[in-house]
Amino acid sequence: MKIAVVAPSCTLKPEAAEMALAIAAARGDCTLAIHDQCFLSEGHFAGPDAARLAALREVMADGSYDAVWFARGGYGSNRIAEAAAADLPPAARSKTYMGYSDSGFLLAAFDRAGLKVAHGPLVQDGLRQGGDAALHRALDWLVRRDPSTLEPGLEQGRRALAFNLTVLSSLLGTSIEPDFSNADLLIEDVAEHDYRIDRTMFHVVGSAAVRKCRRVRLGRMSDIPDNDPPFGHGPETIVPYWCGSRGVDFGGAADIGHDAANKVVPFTLSSN
Amino acid sequence: MKIAVVAPSCTLKPEAAEMALAIAAARGDCTLAIHDQCFLSEGHFAGPDAARLAALREVMADGSYDAVWFARGGYGSNRIAEAAAADLPPAARSKTYMGYSDSGFLLAAFDRAGLKVAHGPLVQDGLRQGGDAALHRALDWLVRRDPSTLEPGLEQGRRALAFNLTVLSSLLGTSIEPDFSNADLLIEDVAEHDYRIDRTMFHVVGSAAVRKCRRVRLGRMSDIPDNDPPFGHGPETIVPYWCGSRGVDFGGAADIGHDAANKVVPFTLSSN
Repeated sequence: MKIAVVAPSCTLKPEAAEMALAIAAARGDCTLAIHDQCFLSEGHFAGPDAARLAALREVMADGSYDAVWFARGGYGSNRIAEAAAADLPPAARSKTYMGYSDSGFLLAAFDRAGLKVAHGPLVQDGLRQGGDAALHRALDWLVRRDPSTLEPGLEQGRRALAFNLTVLSSLLGTSIEPDFSNADLLIEDVAEHDYRIDRTMFHVVGSAAVRKCRRVRLGRMSDIPDNDPPFGHGPETIVPYWCGSRGVDFGGAADIGHDAANKVVPFTLSSN
Repeated sequence: MKIAVVAPSCTLKPEAAEMALAIAAARGDCTLAIHDQCFLSEGHFAGPDAARLAALREVMADGSYDAVWFARGGYGSNRIAEAAAADLPPAARSKTYMGYSDSGFLLAAFDRAGLKVAHGPLVQDGLRQGGDAALHRALDWLVRRDPSTLEPGLEQGRRALAFNLTVLSSLLGTSIEPDFSNADLLIEDVAEHDYRIDRTMFHVVGSAAVRKCRRVRLGRMSDIPDNDPPFGHGPETIVPYWCGSRGVDFGGAADIGHDAANKVVPFTLSSN
């Protein structure tokens, strides 16, 4: 299997690229093609919008790649997501796209456009504590759809979407909003204050489109900064509160998050 | 004129209350009634949701008050905004409501419900450097509609809305979203990273409802935290970029912000 790596958001660290290449070589079941664009840098981004879009469109259109694996999150894929999903070449439809965090903008836009996407580890997750497990999990799913890689609460044939909560909030009502109807909606976040999580939940379940979902499930919300004064509640209280206040079922914990244990969530399991 | 002060978000500092009372007494043209609820504290908030809502509803329904002045921003008015704007008593319609920052959730909900609202200084702004000017500006507008208090780019009879950008983003698509049609939309923000301002602008102009506005004008965006790496652009580039990318006219600078110079923006000038 040939897997292309591009960086639609921030620059990939070279040591993360080397680690992923070494793991793929040792496995012997896949070849990683890490696009030079991954190492560009312009301000916050892995190169200008035009360069990030061009690299992404190039690998989408290339029929020799079976999958596109996003290098890293950060911020910036929203700036190219709509254009990336427009006028799709046929080869774009025959492959799978994986990432999370800021890559959620692309997962949304591509899912809306009918492409096969999955919320799962990024290449740069290799640098996390225990990150080799994250890279193997990503490849086990991309290469052979290993069911042990999947978030354990997913149901066969049941549509599920997974997003960073802040990214989800930022794409609601835009041209890249996906269809939440009857889907499980899994959320996670990192480094957001409790009051921001509360405010973002107000926004997310305030959306009539989101309220079409079957239920919300709560992944890990990590590295929450201290609040002054203490907010008084954490995500495990905030998320069920807002779901309940807007008539959305709360489905308990989900095994996703900004960490090496982040499980894979294909948006449509039956499309595997 | 009698003006009620309530705190739908965070607790008012006693020294801010004393300062506002002293200024009102010295002016002699108004009486401030600072509700005891302003000094409640529960976690992040000026008392529980029920207490904040009850105090707000109490002063809205009291025909002896000519205006309701919000004590302070912070976070939390979104939690009571929908309920505050429901089943309005007649007396609620005969008064004016003023605040900004987190109070924007109430400005939106009340404007949507047909009440008279204005984006302008909060009571706690008295504690800012030069804050006495902010309090006098607020009172000059509430008491005698002094035109020198107004944001100078407003046009008589032209609807204008002003919001903290992050608050605006968080209410889009919810039940309290106001009507932006043909209005000037003024935005300001504080303590948000450039990349967050960029992401929030993507979201805001991604809204078809917002794109009905006549134009966007940029207030001050202050205390922007350092970005690592440097983002490369500030709000004066980011905001026109996103407006242009989505076909929204950009109307230049606006004289509002998280500071003592924050001018008043009544949402409908002709309703004065």
